Amino acid sequence: MINIVIVSHADLGDALIRAAEMIVGSTEGLYSVPLLPDESPESFGEKLEAALLEIEGQETLILIDLFGGTPYNVSARQVLRENVECVTGANLPMLLELVTSRDDVTLSELAEDIAQAGRESVKNLGPMLRK
Amino acid sequence: MINIVIVSHADLGDALIRAAEMIVGSTEGLYSVPLLPDESPESFGEKLEAALLEIEGQETLILIDLFGGTPYNVSARQVLRENVECVTGANLPMLLELVTSRDDVTLSELAEDIAQAGRESVKNLGPMLRK
Repeated sequence: MINIVIVSHADLGDALIRAAEMIVGSTEGLYSVPLLPDESPESFGEKLEAALLEIEGQETLILIDLFGGTPYNVSARQVLRENVECVTGANLPMLLELVTSRDDVTLSELAEDIAQAGRESVKNLGPMLRK
Repeated sequence: MINIVIVSHADLGDALIRAAEMIVGSTEGLYSVPLLPDESPESFGEKLEAALLEIEGQETLILIDLFGGTPYNVSARQVLRENVECVTGANLPMLLELVTSRDDVTLSELAEDIAQAGRESVKNLGPMLRK
Protein backbone atom coordinates (compact mmCIF):
# COMPACT_ATOMS: atom_id res chain seq x y z
CA MET A 1 0.00 0.00 0.00
CA ILE A 2 1.25 3.48 -0.87
CA ASN A 3 1.62 5.67 2.24
CA ILE A 4 0.27 9.21 2.24
CA VAL A 5 1.94 12.00 4.24
CA ILE A 6 0.26 15.40 4.29
CA VAL A 7 2.49 18.35 5.22
CA SER A 8 0.71 21.60 6.00
CA HIS A 9 0.48 24.89 7.83
CA ALA A 10 -1.34 24.37 11.15
CA ASP A 11 -3.59 21.31 11.38
CA LEU A 12 -4.84 21.44 7.80
CA GLY A 13 -3.49 17.94 7.12
CA ASP A 14 -5.27 16.48 10.15
CA ALA A 15 -8.52 18.19 9.12
CA LEU A 16 -8.21 16.82 5.57
CA ILE A 17 -7.86 13.33 7.05
CA ARG A 18 -10.89 13.84 9.33
CA ALA A 19 -12.94 15.10 6.36
CA ALA A 20 -11.89 12.20 4.12
CA GLU A 21 -12.63 9.66 6.85
CA MET A 22 -16.15 11.10 7.23
CA ILE A 23 -16.69 10.01 3.63
CA VAL A 24 -14.71 6.77 3.19
CA GLY A 25 -14.34 5.61 6.79
CA SER A 26 -11.16 4.95 8.72
CA THR A 27 -8.08 4.36 6.55
CA GLU A 28 -4.51 3.16 7.08
CA GLY A 29 -1.19 4.57 5.98
CA LEU A 30 -2.26 8.20 6.33
CA TYR A 31 0.04 10.60 8.18
CA SER A 32 -0.05 14.33 8.89
CA VAL A 33 2.95 16.52 9.71
CA PRO A 34 1.70 19.95 10.81
CA LEU A 35 3.82 23.13 10.95
CA LEU A 36 2.75 24.70 14.23
CA PRO A 37 2.57 28.47 14.68
CA ASP A 38 6.09 29.80 15.49
CA GLU A 39 7.67 26.39 14.82
CA SER A 40 11.10 26.55 13.17
CA PRO A 41 11.80 24.91 9.80
CA GLU A 42 14.40 22.76 11.62
CA SER A 43 11.86 21.43 14.09
CA PHE A 44 9.36 20.79 11.30
CA GLY A 45 12.08 19.00 9.30
CA GLU A 46 12.82 16.73 12.26
CA LYS A 47 9.15 15.79 12.56
CA LEU A 48 8.99 15.02 8.85
CA GLU A 49 12.14 12.87 9.04
CA ALA A 50 10.68 10.97 11.99
CA ALA A 51 7.46 10.32 10.08
CA LEU A 52 9.37 9.17 6.97
CA LEU A 53 11.68 6.94 9.04
CA GLU A 54 8.65 4.96 10.16
CA ILE A 55 7.80 4.13 6.56
CA GLU A 56 11.31 4.11 5.09
CA GLY A 57 11.69 2.21 1.85
CA GLN A 58 7.94 2.04 1.34
CA GLU A 59 6.26 3.91 -1.47
CA THR A 60 5.09 7.28 -0.21
CA LEU A 61 3.16 10.17 -1.67
CA ILE A 62 3.71 13.52 0.09
CA LEU A 63 0.77 15.86 -0.33
CA ILE A 64 1.83 19.48 0.28
CA ASP A 65 -0.62 22.28 1.13
CA LEU A 66 1.03 25.04 -0.88
CA PHE A 67 3.77 25.56 -3.48
CA GLY A 68 6.09 27.66 -1.28
CA GLY A 69 6.33 28.21 2.48
CA THR A 70 8.04 26.07 5.11
CA PRO A 71 6.16 22.76 4.60
CA TYR A 72 6.99 22.90 0.87
CA ASN A 73 10.56 24.12 1.38
CA VAL A 74 11.34 21.32 3.81
CA SER A 75 9.54 18.47 2.07
CA ALA A 76 9.87 19.07 -1.70
CA ARG A 77 13.45 17.72 -1.81
CA GLN A 78 12.12 14.35 -0.61
CA VAL A 79 10.99 13.79 -4.20
CA LEU A 80 14.65 13.05 -5.01
CA ARG A 81 14.47 9.94 -2.79
CA GLU A 82 13.51 6.66 -4.34
CA ASN A 83 9.87 5.66 -3.84
CA VAL A 84 8.68 9.21 -3.05
CA GLU A 85 6.44 11.52 -5.07
CA CYS A 86 5.25 15.00 -4.02
CA VAL A 87 2.17 16.92 -5.16
CA THR A 88 1.17 20.46 -4.06
CA GLY A 89 -2.21 22.15 -3.63
CA ALA A 90 -3.72 19.56 -1.28
CA ASN A 91 -7.51 19.49 -1.22
CA LEU A 92 -10.18 17.00 -0.21
CA PRO A 93 -10.88 15.62 -3.73
CA MET A 94 -7.16 14.85 -4.13
CA LEU A 95 -7.03 13.00 -0.81
CA LEU A 96 -10.18 11.02 -1.68
CA GLU A 97 -8.65 10.06 -5.05
CA LEU A 98 -5.48 9.00 -3.21
CA VAL A 99 -7.14 6.73 -0.71
CA THR A 100 -9.54 5.17 -3.18
CA SER A 101 -7.11 4.50 -6.05
CA ARG A 102 -3.71 3.92 -4.44
CA ASP A 103 -4.01 0.14 -4.70
CA ASP A 104 -4.65 0.17 -8.44
CA VAL A 105 -1.80 2.19 -9.98
CA THR A 106 1.94 2.78 -9.70
CA LEU A 107 3.26 5.57 -7.46
CA SER A 108 4.16 7.83 -10.40
CA GLU A 109 0.77 7.24 -12.01
CA LEU A 110 -0.90 8.05 -8.69
CA ALA A 111 0.94 11.38 -8.47
CA GLU A 112 -0.19 12.31 -11.98
CA ASP A 113 -3.75 11.07 -11.38
CA ILE A 114 -4.27 13.07 -8.20
CA ALA A 115 -2.77 16.20 -9.75
CA GLN A 116 -5.32 15.88 -12.54
CA ALA A 117 -8.12 15.11 -10.06
CA GLY A 118 -7.11 18.19 -8.06
CA ARG A 119 -7.25 20.49 -11.08
CA GLU A 120 -10.58 19.08 -12.26
CA SER A 121 -12.10 19.43 -8.78
CA VAL A 122 -11.91 23.21 -8.94
CA LYS A 123 -15.14 24.48 -10.50
CA ASN A 124 -16.64 27.95 -10.64
CA LEU A 125 -20.33 27.11 -10.22
CA GLY A 126 -21.91 30.42 -11.29
CA PRO A 127 -21.34 30.08 -15.04
CA MET A 128 -22.35 26.37 -14.81
CA LEU A 129 -25.55 26.67 -12.76
CA ARG A 130 -26.97 30.03 -13.86
CA LYS A 131 -27.31 29.02 -17.52
CA MET B 1 -15.23 43.78 1.38
CA ILE B 2 -16.28 40.45 -0.12
CA ASN B 3 -17.16 37.88 2.57
CA ILE B 4 -15.81 34.35 2.37
CA VAL B 5 -17.80 31.37 3.67
CA ILE B 6 -16.11 27.96 3.61
CA VAL B 7 -18.42 24.94 3.75
CA SER B 8 -16.79 21.59 4.43
CA HIS B 9 -16.85 18.12 5.86
CA ALA B 10 -15.64 18.19 9.49
CA ASP B 11 -13.50 21.17 10.49
CA LEU B 12 -11.64 21.47 7.20
CA GLY B 13 -12.87 25.05 6.72
CA ASP B 14 -11.67 26.10 10.18
CA ALA B 15 -8.28 24.50 9.54
CA LEU B 16 -7.98 26.30 6.19
CA ILE B 17 -8.62 29.58 8.00
CA ARG B 18 -6.04 28.76 10.70
CA ALA B 19 -3.47 27.85 8.01
CA ALA B 20 -4.14 31.03 5.99
CA GLU B 21 -3.93 33.19 9.11
CA MET B 22 -0.51 31.68 9.94
CA ILE B 23 0.64 33.20 6.64
CA VAL B 24 -1.26 36.48 6.26
CA GLY B 25 -2.28 37.20 9.87
CA SER B 26 -5.76 37.65 11.25
CA THR B 27 -8.42 38.54 8.67
CA GLU B 28 -12.03 39.72 8.68
CA GLY B 29 -15.09 38.49 6.84
CA LEU B 30 -14.06 34.84 6.95
CA TYR B 31 -16.63 32.25 8.04
CA SER B 32 -16.63 28.46 8.29
CA VAL B 33 -19.69 26.21 8.28
CA PRO B 34 -18.63 22.65 9.16
CA LEU B 35 -20.71 19.52 8.53
CA LEU B 36 -20.21 17.53 11.72
CA PRO B 37 -20.08 13.71 11.72
CA ASP B 38 -23.66 12.37 11.72
CA GLU B 39 -25.15 15.85 11.21
CA SER B 40 -28.22 15.93 8.96
CA PRO B 41 -28.34 17.98 5.75
CA GLU B 42 -31.24 19.91 7.34
CA SER B 43 -29.19 20.91 10.36
CA PHE B 44 -26.24 21.84 8.15
CA GLY B 45 -28.56 23.91 5.96
CA GLU B 46 -29.87 25.80 9.00
CA LYS B 47 -26.30 26.66 10.06
CA LEU B 48 -25.50 27.87 6.56
CA GLU B 49 -28.65 30.01 6.45
CA ALA B 50 -27.77 31.53 9.83
CA ALA B 51 -24.26 32.37 8.61
CA LEU B 52 -25.61 33.91 5.39
CA LEU B 53 -28.27 35.88 7.27
CA GLU B 54 -25.50 37.69 9.16
CA ILE B 55 -24.04 38.95 5.90
CA GLU B 56 -27.22 39.19 3.84
CA GLY B 57 -27.06 41.47 0.83
CA GLN B 58 -23.27 41.68 1.01
CA GLU B 59 -21.10 40.15 -1.66
CA THR B 60 -20.14 36.63 -0.63
CA LEU B 61 -17.97 33.92 -2.08
CA ILE B 62 -18.78 30.39 -0.88
CA LEU B 63 -15.78 28.09 -1.06
CA ILE B 64 -16.88 24.43 -1.09
CA ASP B 65 -14.58 21.52 -0.16
CA LEU B 66 -15.83 19.05 -2.76
CA PHE B 67 -18.05 18.89 -5.85
CA GLY B 68 -20.71 16.56 -4.38
CA GLY B 69 -21.60 15.57 -0.82
CA THR B 70 -23.78 17.36 1.70
CA PRO B 71 -21.88 20.69 1.95
CA TYR B 72 -22.03 21.02 -1.85
CA ASN B 73 -25.62 19.79 -2.15
CA VAL B 74 -26.86 22.27 0.43
CA SER B 75 -24.81 25.31 -0.59
CA ALA B 76 -24.45 25.19 -4.39
CA ARG B 77 -27.96 26.56 -4.98
CA GLN B 78 -26.91 29.76 -3.16
CA VAL B 79 -25.17 30.74 -6.40
CA LEU B 80 -28.64 31.61 -7.73
CA ARG B 81 -28.88 34.42 -5.15
CA GLU B 82 -27.70 37.87 -6.09
CA ASN B 83 -24.23 38.73 -4.83
CA VAL B 84 -23.16 35.12 -4.30
CA GLU B 85 -20.56 33.05 -6.15
CA CYS B 86 -19.55 29.45 -5.35
CA VAL B 87 -16.29 27.65 -6.14
CA THR B 88 -15.47 24.00 -5.33
CA GLY B 89 -12.18 22.23 -4.53
CA ALA B 90 -11.14 24.49 -1.63
CA ASN B 91 -7.43 24.51 -0.90
CA LEU B 92 -5.00 26.83 0.88
CA PRO B 93 -3.71 28.61 -2.26
CA MET B 94 -7.31 29.48 -3.22
CA LEU B 95 -8.04 30.90 0.23
CA LEU B 96 -4.81 32.94 0.17
CA GLU B 97 -5.73 34.32 -3.26
CA LEU B 98 -9.18 35.17 -1.91
CA VAL B 99 -8.03 37.11 1.14
CA THR B 100 -5.24 38.95 -0.68
CA SER B 101 -7.13 39.98 -3.83
CA ARG B 102 -10.77 40.37 -2.79
CA ASP B 103 -10.47 44.17 -2.52
CA ASP B 104 -9.18 44.60 -6.06
CA VAL B 105 -11.68 42.82 -8.31
CA THR B 106 -15.41 42.25 -8.79
CA LEU B 107 -17.07 39.22 -7.19
CA SER B 108 -17.41 37.36 -10.49
CA GLU B 109 -13.78 38.11 -11.39
CA LEU B 110 -12.73 36.87 -7.95
CA ALA B 111 -14.54 33.56 -8.47
CA GLU B 112 -12.80 33.05 -11.81
CA ASP B 113 -9.41 34.17 -10.45
CA ILE B 114 -9.44 31.78 -7.50
CA ALA B 115 -10.61 28.89 -9.66
CA GLN B 116 -7.62 29.52 -11.89
CA ALA B 117 -5.30 29.93 -8.89
CA GLY B 118 -6.60 26.66 -7.49
CA ARG B 119 -5.93 24.74 -10.69
CA GLU B 120 -2.46 26.23 -11.08
CA SER B 121 -1.57 25.45 -7.45
CA VAL B 122 -1.69 21.71 -8.12
CA LYS B 123 1.77 20.61 -9.22
CA ASN B 124 3.32 17.17 -9.51
CA LEU B 125 6.87 17.92 -8.34
CA GLY B 126 8.65 14.75 -9.51
CA PRO B 127 8.74 15.55 -13.22
CA MET B 128 9.66 19.19 -12.37
CA LEU B 129 12.45 18.62 -9.84
CA ARG B 130 14.08 15.39 -11.08
CA LYS B 131 15.02 16.84 -14.48
